[in-house]
Amino acid sequence: MGDYSQHMATVVTLEGKRKSPSLEPLLALCADDMAQVDREILARMRSPVALIPELANHLVGAGGKRMRPLLTVAAARLCGYANADDRHIKLATCVEFIHSATLLHDDVVDVSALRRGKPSANAVWGDKASVLVGDFLFTRSFELMVDVGSLDILGVLSRASSTIAEGEVLQLVSQRDTSTPEATYLEIIKAKTAKLFAAAAEVGAMVAGRDGPERVALESFGMNLGIAFQLVDDALDYAGREATLGKTVGDDFREGKITLPIILAFLRGRTVEREFWKRTIEKLDQREGDLEQAKMLLDRHGAIADTFERARHYGAMARDALGLFPDKPLKAAMLEAVDFAIARAH
Amino acid sequence: MGDYSQHMATVVTLEGKRKSPSLEPLLALCADDMAQVDREILARMRSPVALIPELANHLVGAGGKRMRPLLTVAAARLCGYANADDRHIKLATCVEFIHSATLLHDDVVDVSALRRGKPSANAVWGDKASVLVGDFLFTRSFELMVDVGSLDILGVLSRASSTIAEGEVLQLVSQRDTSTPEATYLEIIKAKTAKLFAAAAEVGAMVAGRDGPERVALESFGMNLGIAFQLVDDALDYAGREATLGKTVGDDFREGKITLPIILAFLRGRTVEREFWKRTIEKLDQREGDLEQAKMLLDRHGAIADTFERARHYGAMARDALGLFPDKPLKAAMLEAVDFAIARAH
Repeated sequence: MGDYSQHMATVVTLEGKRKSPSLEPLLALCADDMAQVDREILARMRSPVALIPELANHLVGAGGKRMRPLLTVAAARLCGYANADDRHIKLATCVEFIHSATLLHDDVVDVSALRRGKPSANAVWGDKASVLVGDFLFTRSFELMVDVGSLDILGVLSRASSTIAEGEVLQLVSQRDTSTPEATYLEIIKAKTAKLFAAAAEVGAMVAGRDGPERVALESFGMNLGIAFQLVDDALDYAGREATLGKTVGDDFREGKITLPIILAFLRGRTVEREFWKRTIEKLDQREGDLEQAKMLLDRHGAIADTFERARHYGAMARDALGLFPDKPLKAAMLEAVDFAIARAH
Repeated sequence: MGDYSQHMATVVTLEGKRKSPSLEPLLALCADDMAQVDREILARMRSPVALIPELANHLVGAGGKRMRPLLTVAAARLCGYANADDRHIKLATCVEFIHSATLLHDDVVDVSALRRGKPSANAVWGDKASVLVGDFLFTRSFELMVDVGSLDILGVLSRASSTIAEGEVLQLVSQRDTSTPEATYLEIIKAKTAKLFAAAAEVGAMVAGRDGPERVALESFGMNLGIAFQLVDDALDYAGREATLGKTVGDDFREGKITLPIILAFLRGRTVEREFWKRTIEKLDQREGDLEQAKMLLDRHGAIADTFERARHYGAMARDALGLFPDKPLKAAMLEAVDFAIARAH
């Protein structure tokens, strides 16, 4: 595959050296909050039914980057949130629970065997437990929202949850359809991924009492970051390094999942290539060497490179959304997080 | 099987004739509200993703008795709710959506082929669609709650949802364990069934502004009615008439589901009988004639009769919970609904 790193944003250190953009500065600035989020996550997973914390801990406890709760606390702090209460922690936990619930259900729907480099919960405990513990985390997230006590915030997060569910169904009905338009793909990733990023950042502003332009800006920051994030995820599924990905390269291909790389390669391909995509993706009739052939076709049409290019477009919009905030280390770290989302793992 | 109707409550008509208790009087008194609930249900299932209303309508649109939303509007009216707004309609819809979401997920978890006498949604559209549309209905129910705008009501319904999910997991981990104590069974049916009945009635009182003893009374009415309802459901799975049940007799047996009839027969049975239950329920090694043998053993130990007896105990508590309300036709209809829940379909 080609080298897609040439247009990547880079960070110039104090010593003048270029290094890859990283999530570390943002994690460092939010370290206290995120430690509290970790504790809240563990506390809220408790249940007398032992399977619940056991299964939930396998997924939630084992980490992942916690991008979404990080967005909530960062947005709140960027808006000057300095309250002694822990409402931003509860909201961050709530956002992570919504995300975890959808992951559990996703893995059942996608019949995934791996998640974050480990066997997925459904592979260990079965589909039934994953569906029901997903429901539990979902309902727990609503209890957390109610605890926070703001009907406006409840409105934002409940609409986001409902949009995610709608997006998942839309993805299901579009599955394996190689003629899916890019617009439909965009609608799906907005609903199932970006909307929660948007809500996560938006409620950070709201809990800090910034209901005007800051709220709008952070919602837009989250939305565009989320779109970029998912585009990169979908590109990495073909172009990533397995060890860094924590999942298997080619998973989307094997599932017949329609993502932008496939859509572009199909649109740009000749008849014989379209026949290849129809056989492998629509009919799921896959043979030895098909994944390599798919990668070759994606490469031929620049489908991966252009997926990263689309991601950079949304990344740029995310960065500009923060324009109204004064420059400070937290803002710089959030901008670097956008670059990290685009440059990660390849 | 024996005749369990001898201790059933009966209703004496004006002409002095005894007739079976019915849900009709309550449905008649709440007809206007329930017609509005029907319209609200249809309106709230709408989505540009066509599969959502299609699948949801198969389950929700096709009826069922709508016991839970009926409880909400009846409780609100019993508490003198006379507002011009439609908050009680929204709450009733919300309760039906929570219930429908759990049914969709239940049928996936239980691998059920029939629901309300029709092929179940998972049998028609597959497990994936059922999981995701269930999530959609769940999130829609939260949007409805947020619309109603009361944090107290949100607290009650979000805790109920969380308890249901916890109960479903508890049921899953206890599945096929013939040594499940009656107390655990009771805990499961309280969590997965009765809690929503309780919340449905409780929020009816709350929306009517009756936050004191009426709220407590209606919560208790719903809880006890819900326990009785589930006990009868579990008895009817062995003793019901298929046409009236809308599901297949013996479903619980074939799934190895632990319900009170099995628990009692196991506790009361001799070693050879316990071996039979372990083979058929724990190992799910079932042969020709086993269901008939199971029914015979249940009959021998009075397990079905005593399950109905337990249901009557909770029914009596439900009836007494309404003691503080003045006598009027609505109260009488609610009391008759309790008797109907116990006497139905056998």
